[in-house]
Amino acid sequence: MTGTRRPFTQRMIASDVGVSVTTVSRVLNPAETHPERWASPETVAAIIRSAERNGYRPNPHATSLRTARSNVVGVLVPRLQDFVLATIYEGIDEAATEAGVSTFVTNSLDKPDLQRVRTQQMLDRRVDGLIFGDAHLDDDFLDDLARQEVTFVLASRRHGDHVSVTCDDPAGGRLVAEHLLATDRREVAILAGLPFASTARERSQGLIDRFAEAGLEIPEHRIVFNGFDAAAGREAADQILARRPYPDAIFATNDFAAIGAMGALRDKGLQIPDDVAVVGYNDTPLAASLPIPLTTIRSPMHEMGRQALQTLLRKLGGAEVESRRLTPELIIRASTGSD
Amino acid sequence: MTGTRRPFTQRMIASDVGVSVTTVSRVLNPAETHPERWASPETVAAIIRSAERNGYRPNPHATSLRTARSNVVGVLVPRLQDFVLATIYEGIDEAATEAGVSTFVTNSLDKPDLQRVRTQQMLDRRVDGLIFGDAHLDDDFLDDLARQEVTFVLASRRHGDHVSVTCDDPAGGRLVAEHLLATDRREVAILAGLPFASTARERSQGLIDRFAEAGLEIPEHRIVFNGFDAAAGREAADQILARRPYPDAIFATNDFAAIGAMGALRDKGLQIPDDVAVVGYNDTPLAASLPIPLTTIRSPMHEMGRQALQTLLRKLGGAEVESRRLTPELIIRASTGSD
Repeated sequence: MTGTRRPFTQRMIASDVGVSVTTVSRVLNPAETHPERWASPETVAAIIRSAERNGYRPNPHATSLRTARSNVVGVLVPRLQDFVLATIYEGIDEAATEAGVSTFVTNSLDKPDLQRVRTQQMLDRRVDGLIFGDAHLDDDFLDDLARQEVTFVLASRRHGDHVSVTCDDPAGGRLVAEHLLATDRREVAILAGLPFASTARERSQGLIDRFAEAGLEIPEHRIVFNGFDAAAGREAADQILARRPYPDAIFATNDFAAIGAMGALRDKGLQIPDDVAVVGYNDTPLAASLPIPLTTIRSPMHEMGRQALQTLLRKLGGAEVESRRLTPELIIRASTGSD
Repeated sequence: MTGTRRPFTQRMIASDVGVSVTTVSRVLNPAETHPERWASPETVAAIIRSAERNGYRPNPHATSLRTARSNVVGVLVPRLQDFVLATIYEGIDEAATEAGVSTFVTNSLDKPDLQRVRTQQMLDRRVDGLIFGDAHLDDDFLDDLARQEVTFVLASRRHGDHVSVTCDDPAGGRLVAEHLLATDRREVAILAGLPFASTARERSQGLIDRFAEAGLEIPEHRIVFNGFDAAAGREAADQILARRPYPDAIFATNDFAAIGAMGALRDKGLQIPDDVAVVGYNDTPLAASLPIPLTTIRSPMHEMGRQALQTLLRKLGGAEVESRRLTPELIIRASTGSD
């Protein structure tokens, strides 16, 4: 409390000028229109000079009242525990710090009711705008927000025509397809992820489309929508492997789901990659360090976050902004027998 | 912008009373001492009644100026990408939301200069207090902060006598030792983690002490301080395995480092657990889903975050608070051949 009411800079100024921190605090209070009531004009001038030397910044709350800008941006993610979202948020926060903006981040756990509550909490906090990393294809919440003229940008997941910064997920799915076709894998199963996430839909569809172009159809029973994490991936893989013949490749739209699949394959006594090749998505640091290094798609998560924040600030500044799709890259490792 | 300057509630009130959002905004401005200058007394009364019905909350910035409380808490973590810190932060943010407090979170990347800069940025933002998840044993930064009467609580890592909420790390290390001794592992190597983190030091020391009580000494060359992530764990394990005889067990003070070690063992053609048992720490969800499920120590990360926030709020309220050590739990899985 005390310490935060008188931060370092005010203490420096106080000792610098030789007055109490209280005097400095009163004189520098942005709401104070007559600072000379607290000190002699000479002292006030000395305090202000010292403030400039010490790089003192005024109370942002007071500033925000004057400008009607809080310089705070709200960020909603499904879950910060998810490495992908944590990385995107790091990019958002890095770009925000560079722009002198602060961010509030919170989890929506991909629950529509929580998305609404958390968003209202952010708006009550007077955020200038919002970044959503948790868009649901089957929910019109974002359309309502847009009608209410709330300024926001989507990251990672797309929704309708709302401005978004994402990885080119259909292209990512096609890259996986190209690699599997080039390594003679024809019987592919897809651990697609969450059905309401554009990332899950588009990564899967990209592979399905490219296989179709090669005259290969992926049967319904080999496409399982489930979660993105390791437990969900294991569950989905178990479902796939409950049926014969086994696929000769598994594409998981998330590295963690792929790790779960590796466990399921091991329990069946199936060898990776000889019996079944495994491909993940995102190239999380773990992918390279796994006992069997994982072939995956590298998505520019950090850059995605940076651009989402910069796009939001341009939009808040009144500029016309458009959606961006960043380029994915195929990273080949031992799990497809190609290292 | 527009939407966030006039959040839902003000719009509801406006249509409710039948006046413009601007009028509502002016009348409800907490800094406004004479609302009747903007509307008739009847209208002002109607707006205030409607505000209450609509659960309208005043601008927290204006409120904070009056109360000198921002109701915002700053949180510094080494890196949100780290699942452990992300989970602790989720606990912090959950408890903060319950208490009507918001949190700013940022990464210090465990860099002392960045810890100082980010902390000052938080204080410039007038946070009421801070939670540090990135304490360094070899740095007196926190002592300086305490002298400046900044209110803070440590989470996960301890430092001197500063109030902290941590897992009982020495006890965790002893649990690992008990399990390895019970399964006849005598030649243990330790991937200790970052040398300046109390978690790394205390988890390692707990095991070392228990082995000493059993008359077993762990040679220096089998204790490697390195990072907590998979790449660092792999590197440290490679260093251990460069020397014969091989250990019959590896204890990594972080699950991700343990996963890196699994990769290193596989490259040497060593079997887990037959040749070498592997134990991790934290019981991240991945541990159970790995191809070889990982024996590990479950630490109450989420609860740690909750209690750190609650402790900080009590401290901000002027209460005497003490450090807490939460209880770790051994989770036995296949990587020690004991499932």
